[in-house]
Amino acid sequence: MSKNRMEAFSDGVIAIIITIMVLELHAPPGADVNVLRPLLPVFLCYVLSFVFLGIYWNNHHHLLHAIAHVDGRVLWANLHLLFWLSLIPFVTAWMGENRFAAWPVALYGVVMLGAAVAYFILARALIALHGRDSVLATALGRDRKGKISLVFYLAAIPVAFVYPWLSCALYVLVAIMWLIPDRRIEKTLHQ
Amino acid sequence: MSKNRMEAFSDGVIAIIITIMVLELHAPPGADVNVLRPLLPVFLCYVLSFVFLGIYWNNHHHLLHAIAHVDGRVLWANLHLLFWLSLIPFVTAWMGENRFAAWPVALYGVVMLGAAVAYFILARALIALHGRDSVLATALGRDRKGKISLVFYLAAIPVAFVYPWLSCALYVLVAIMWLIPDRRIEKTLHQ
Amino acid sequence: MSKNRMEAFSDGVIAIIITIMVLELHAPPGADVNVLRPLLPVFLCYVLSFVFLGIYWNNHHHLLHAIAHVDGRVLWANLHLLFWLSLIPFVTAWMGENRFAAWPVALYGVVMLGAAVAYFILARALIALHGRDSVLATALGRDRKGKISLVFYLAAIPVAFVYPWLSCALYVLVAIMWLIPDRRIEKTLHQ
Amino acid sequence: MSKNRMEAFSDGVIAIIITIMVLELHAPPGADVNVLRPLLPVFLCYVLSFVFLGIYWNNHHHLLHAIAHVDGRVLWANLHLLFWLSLIPFVTAWMGENRFAAWPVALYGVVMLGAAVAYFILARALIALHGRDSVLATALGRDRKGKISLVFYLAAIPVAFVYPWLSCALYVLVAIMWLIPDRRIEKTLHQ
Repeated sequence: MSKNRMEAFSDGVIAIIITIMVLELHAPPGADVNVLRPLLPVFLCYVLSFVFLGIYWNNHHHLLHAIAHVDGRVLWANLHLLFWLSLIPFVTAWMGENRFAAWPVALYGVVMLGAAVAYFILARALIALHGRDSVLATALGRDRKGKISLVFYLAAIPVAFVYPWLSCALYVLVAIMWLIPDRRIEKTLHQ
Repeated sequence: MSKNRMEAFSDGVIAIIITIMVLELHAPPGADVNVLRPLLPVFLCYVLSFVFLGIYWNNHHHLLHAIAHVDGRVLWANLHLLFWLSLIPFVTAWMGENRFAAWPVALYGVVMLGAAVAYFILARALIALHGRDSVLATALGRDRKGKISLVFYLAAIPVAFVYPWLSCALYVLVAIMWLIPDRRIEKTLHQ
Repeated sequence: MSKNRMEAFSDGVIAIIITIMVLELHAPPGADVNVLRPLLPVFLCYVLSFVFLGIYWNNHHHLLHAIAHVDGRVLWANLHLLFWLSLIPFVTAWMGENRFAAWPVALYGVVMLGAAVAYFILARALIALHGRDSVLATALGRDRKGKISLVFYLAAIPVAFVYPWLSCALYVLVAIMWLIPDRRIEKTLHQ
Repeated sequence: MSKNRMEAFSDGVIAIIITIMVLELHAPPGADVNVLRPLLPVFLCYVLSFVFLGIYWNNHHHLLHAIAHVDGRVLWANLHLLFWLSLIPFVTAWMGENRFAAWPVALYGVVMLGAAVAYFILARALIALHGRDSVLATALGRDRKGKISLVFYLAAIPVAFVYPWLSCALYVLVAIMWLIPDRRIEKTLHQ
């Protein structure tokens, strides 16, 4: 079974998720610059989630770049990842409209954790299909970045109830860490 | 006529349907966890419909995987299927916002029945084009799962007016039955 | 310049237009079947516009099927067509919410006329690029259906101010006439 | 790394942005033609932004047409461009609903400037990857149109606070200048 349609479908879903988030940026009533000020936290959350979705699309791209075919299990692991990503607009809006209050920040972390776990499962399903000696398995290696992200999300969720801004800082740190695209696969492929 | 553009268009439509459903999950006013509680039935309906659309995409993928070309009749049978799928966000929202009341649950079943019948017609149109001895015809075989689904939907619609939760259980059962992707086609193809 | 990306972009835009129309079908407050009654004209307009967009996608598919490459002029002729199609959700909602009143029905015809003219321009731009003796030019021939549609739309616009239901009947007639996909191109290609 | 998925993802995002803008054209309550009058500035802004997004899609198409592969840096430069484009629906709605008031018109210019700079960065990243002697580098040449656009946007932002209509005229001028697709690349490719 070829990977093309799974790629196309994932691209479609991620493209829509990344774009409908902007619908939360309602044009405010009034033409003065002051009416934009309450939108600032919503906008910052939009930027953060845009970057996260960009990272997922980028890594998804790299992940599938290294492989040739998929099976039914991979299709479902992929849909599972898309499900968690589809919740990002909701938690982004809730966090932005409540200016980084405890519960919304914690829930943002839960969705991020869910997406990270789903990505991990997808990578495992692909390795199970292509073998432990495949380019993909070698490239992912010990997947340090992935494990650090999980730890950061797990920490950010309880921390949100004490210092919600610290949780946000942890999310930003994860994003910065991933902004450098997954060169592991690129390197292994070009050896 | 090649199947590529029909695949791409269907992927696009299903990707949008699966994603705009999440727009019904309005970020509630208030930052407390209690404000999320009324959203729970809406969320459960979202999960159910996400799974159903995932199943349709998956089966659509398998269905077209086995064939090589399409004609004008198949294009319209496909648009007919997409029409029924496009009504899923509406019935999902209505059912979720009314916490599984009789009429919304019954209408959900009507749309599911319409989609199932449309899928059946699409499969027949493809078999008519590729021949009764084609890989596709052999793979679909007697299509037991498809027939069981139709019976379950037909039962769920009247039942909704007495025990709406039983109808929901029937929908969940159909989803579980289909979650295992259509191995019939995969198997026949690899023989 | 290859036609692939223009096809993919058009598929994306038409897929989104066809799907966001369903957002106008707001889940009504209340779980009774009576609350659905006011939605009926909105739903009928949705069905009509779904069929029209399906026809455009289908014909667009056939049109590009017959050709090999595009140029800058064709890209803009295509964007011009997509512009008119993008106005369909607006006029559909306005017509449905006002139960086929004069002005909304007339404006629906204006948008349909704009789209039909844009399709005509696109077909001419493609023939100008591929030559009067190309498969496409022979296949389109005298384009009787296209011309009849233009006449029907031109008639439906003024008629809407006297008998809006007659205009709607004209729209339905055009849709039925086109539901049979453009066999002219298919036939010529298979000779 | 092949350019196909980056093209597909960009097509998806631009297709969605161009389409969701039409959601701002809410069907007005009332069936008379007068209720459409307040929508006129919103509609004009929609047309302007539709043309701008069409120009970006067109130029993006031409830009990638000339190249063969991409790397992680190009992927992020592309996402950066898509980020700025994703803000267009917001500024379009704000400008339209406030009938070309000073701040909204200025902010429209800021987003247009951001998109133009992002496009410039993307072109540089592609030239860095393909070499100063590549078809792309020769084709882009001194990029006069790009530089004139930047100057126009930079002028339009402060001017908006004195004569907002003059800024709008500058935006329209840029659009007209670009409506002629980037023949530089086409010409170089066909030599």
